Amino acid sequence: MNVVVWNENRHEKTNAKVAEIYPTGIHGAIADFLNEEEVNVKTATLEETEHGLTEEILNETDVLLWWGHVAHHEVQDEIVEKVQQRVLEGMGLIVLHSGHFSKIFKQLMGTTCDLKWREAGEKERLWAVDPTHPIAEGLGEYIELEQEEMYGEHFDIPTPDELVFVSWFEGGEVFRSGATFKRGKGKIFYFRPGHETYPTYYNKDVQRVIKNAVKWVNNQNTPTHVYGNTKPLENISEK
Amino acid sequence: MNVVVWNENRHEKTNAKVAEIYPTGIHGAIADFLNEEEVNVKTATLEETEHGLTEEILNETDVLLWWGHVAHHEVQDEIVEKVQQRVLEGMGLIVLHSGHFSKIFKQLMGTTCDLKWREAGEKERLWAVDPTHPIAEGLGEYIELEQEEMYGEHFDIPTPDELVFVSWFEGGEVFRSGATFKRGKGKIFYFRPGHETYPTYYNKDVQRVIKNAVKWVNNQNTPTHVYGNTKPLENISEK
Amino acid sequence: MNVVVWNENRHEKTNAKVAEIYPTGIHGAIADFLNEEEVNVKTATLEETEHGLTEEILNETDVLLWWGHVAHHEVQDEIVEKVQQRVLEGMGLIVLHSGHFSKIFKQLMGTTCDLKWREAGEKERLWAVDPTHPIAEGLGEYIELEQEEMYGEHFDIPTPDELVFVSWFEGGEVFRSGATFKRGKGKIFYFRPGHETYPTYYNKDVQRVIKNAVKWVNNQNTPTHVYGNTKPLENISEK
Amino acid sequence: MNVVVWNENRHEKTNAKVAEIYPTGIHGAIADFLNEEEVNVKTATLEETEHGLTEEILNETDVLLWWGHVAHHEVQDEIVEKVQQRVLEGMGLIVLHSGHFSKIFKQLMGTTCDLKWREAGEKERLWAVDPTHPIAEGLGEYIELEQEEMYGEHFDIPTPDELVFVSWFEGGEVFRSGATFKRGKGKIFYFRPGHETYPTYYNKDVQRVIKNAVKWVNNQNTPTHVYGNTKPLENISEK
Repeated sequence: MNVVVWNENRHEKTNAKVAEIYPTGIHGAIADFLNEEEVNVKTATLEETEHGLTEEILNETDVLLWWGHVAHHEVQDEIVEKVQQRVLEGMGLIVLHSGHFSKIFKQLMGTTCDLKWREAGEKERLWAVDPTHPIAEGLGEYIELEQEEMYGEHFDIPTPDELVFVSWFEGGEVFRSGATFKRGKGKIFYFRPGHETYPTYYNKDVQRVIKNAVKWVNNQNTPTHVYGNTKPLENISEK
Repeated sequence: MNVVVWNENRHEKTNAKVAEIYPTGIHGAIADFLNEEEVNVKTATLEETEHGLTEEILNETDVLLWWGHVAHHEVQDEIVEKVQQRVLEGMGLIVLHSGHFSKIFKQLMGTTCDLKWREAGEKERLWAVDPTHPIAEGLGEYIELEQEEMYGEHFDIPTPDELVFVSWFEGGEVFRSGATFKRGKGKIFYFRPGHETYPTYYNKDVQRVIKNAVKWVNNQNTPTHVYGNTKPLENISEK
Repeated sequence: MNVVVWNENRHEKTNAKVAEIYPTGIHGAIADFLNEEEVNVKTATLEETEHGLTEEILNETDVLLWWGHVAHHEVQDEIVEKVQQRVLEGMGLIVLHSGHFSKIFKQLMGTTCDLKWREAGEKERLWAVDPTHPIAEGLGEYIELEQEEMYGEHFDIPTPDELVFVSWFEGGEVFRSGATFKRGKGKIFYFRPGHETYPTYYNKDVQRVIKNAVKWVNNQNTPTHVYGNTKPLENISEK
Repeated sequence: MNVVVWNENRHEKTNAKVAEIYPTGIHGAIADFLNEEEVNVKTATLEETEHGLTEEILNETDVLLWWGHVAHHEVQDEIVEKVQQRVLEGMGLIVLHSGHFSKIFKQLMGTTCDLKWREAGEKERLWAVDPTHPIAEGLGEYIELEQEEMYGEHFDIPTPDELVFVSWFEGGEVFRSGATFKRGKGKIFYFRPGHETYPTYYNKDVQRVIKNAVKWVNNQNTPTHVYGNTKPLENISEK
């Protein structure tokens, strides 16, 4: 399985605190723990040619992870089109945290993907509300993060296919923090935590969820449908 | 309730058979039976200024019906943006038949909305598979249409919020023919039948469904959410 | 529309505090505000013959509300069977608060319907997470209840057809507080708040939700399906 | 993974045609092809002590397949209770064909699970309508069965969590033929084909679906929730 971790990699260069927490970038930290699994992991960033997402790379990618925040608008529309195309063809997509406002996520959802937010270093508790879901394998009843950015409802997304986590925030809000979607042959997982100024991606439960999600969104060999004009499979009566 | 029936109105001008079946256009036929209900009905067509969908008209529209086929690409992107914006704000949208490939539907779905199709004048039977749904009120177990265009699976849409009808076709295919979706504050209903060369919109059951759907997608006064940066509702502990 | 508010009416007789808050019983308080709508409201309680739910009464009931807590086991199985039968035939059902553990709800869900709970007079905030839903009409972004019993996830129910409210609790839990289900021709709404020692059913937003839900679960005239052995609608080829 | 194939094994003893098609019983035929996978397969039948489903066996079973038809009422209620309990604890369940009317399926669904049916040796075509689903891995666009019993809508089940297959029948009906459900920690798959007088379980695509489903319903290690009275995780303010 070929996995690409994409990151805009901007905060890491402009904010010393972020650079300290994630010395090899958020993508580096995520790639590190994914390398513990039996998958081939590459990273790609905004500043690379074609954002590191050339057609060749995309075509051999099974699962793409996406972290972006301040530079969503710098992502070229034609790259977004190609990523969308690949998701519809069956590439798995994991959208992390502030990626909720990425072009690719909004385009796949058809909504604003807007939400409430607040940076106050408050506690988040993600409750596992679907006890059947492979993405929650190996977890306890909830994940607790001592400090995170708050995202609050209403989260303007279509009804998720599955709701895996619901967050409680110290400041009084709730959020649908782990949600799956299907688009074409592609499986999508949105996972809320991961603000750049907190060491969230070092949390073992967060890593467990992302590892599980990589497996879950990976589509092996489901039916490929043919579209367009088609001949009848049965006789049609004269009228 | 203000209802606008939008039609590209192209086949009616170029195809004598269509003009004969729908002398006032498909929009005219639909407006006629909607006028039997307690709603204000207007029509709008592609050739009008801003396709008849000016900001003023859109702002006072509660429910928009959409029929298009050969001229999807002629619909201006900025009008599509405005329609999408209004749906997200709560305007109901009913997408009819070949409108599956309209810019507005594809943009709200995030998928190709592709399907199999065939014009062979074959029989379609739409089975009502959700016996709780207000859109099926007043119907029997199924709607039978002696001759229709075939649309077959796979229909490349996101998982519908609700599946109301499944079609059987003489030639051997099935299709999810009546499906609801939620986007923002807007409710959407896709309804399959309505090929231009058949008198489908004169069928009483088809009319019943569309009348029911107009009521169902109409959003009165649901919560309006505030997005963006927000203050805590509870005290956040010092850390 | 004929509405019946059912209550086990036990706390009201044994707990002075409850009797003081609800002098005519929880059923009386609910019937009072439902009487502001254009519906016929009756009440029924556990101690009545057949729990006040005779076949005659059930047959003419369009919507049934259910409040129970300490006496779930005293509800006769044959009455539960009849109520289930009526729901499958199209009677709307609204299950309130501790009714989550009623025989009728568990039987319709197929799960334990278990949950976490705590009586600590803590704050509950119900966020409206589906901004299209008629059950949320007339509300703001959330409902705040200064003191309520806590119900926490995991709530052991099947995936709801629609998730309307998610609760935040002061003590650190979340809960899927407003959820819809379809069973047969019947529509079901579960609504969490309503502990007997708090004046929850006098809260105007709570009343608004219950009034909206009564309309929403009421099924008028959807298709009645025929089951069992059936003749073909089309010719079947010899083989 | 421990798999048990349960069969009432009645037609095989009373109908020579069935005995000829399935000389080791339907359970034998299913166990045979499941043995091609890396799983431990056992069978169990109605006539065995406790129907072959003792507590010991159930406790070590990861996935249970269920085929029954004429003897649903002979299955003891207490065994059904134990199977339901195990499903809620996480045992996967695959309900085959006429198992739609089994006690265990009806109890988990909360509905009648009724449907239309006809034995006319007609053609069935199962269209794969969810091109992301692991249960459809390795298939083409549809599965064609030259002769099968017909099951037609309305199928009185709750809204499936996922709809994987929709059947077309020669005689004019459609059916939701492959559907998933979640109950407690358990994953359930209902799969329609498999009438006893046709060699359906020798069809390679049908075998593929059942093999895929065994993997899909198998729950490894998802969160185990604690229910009941619970202490707060956060301070609750004095009021």
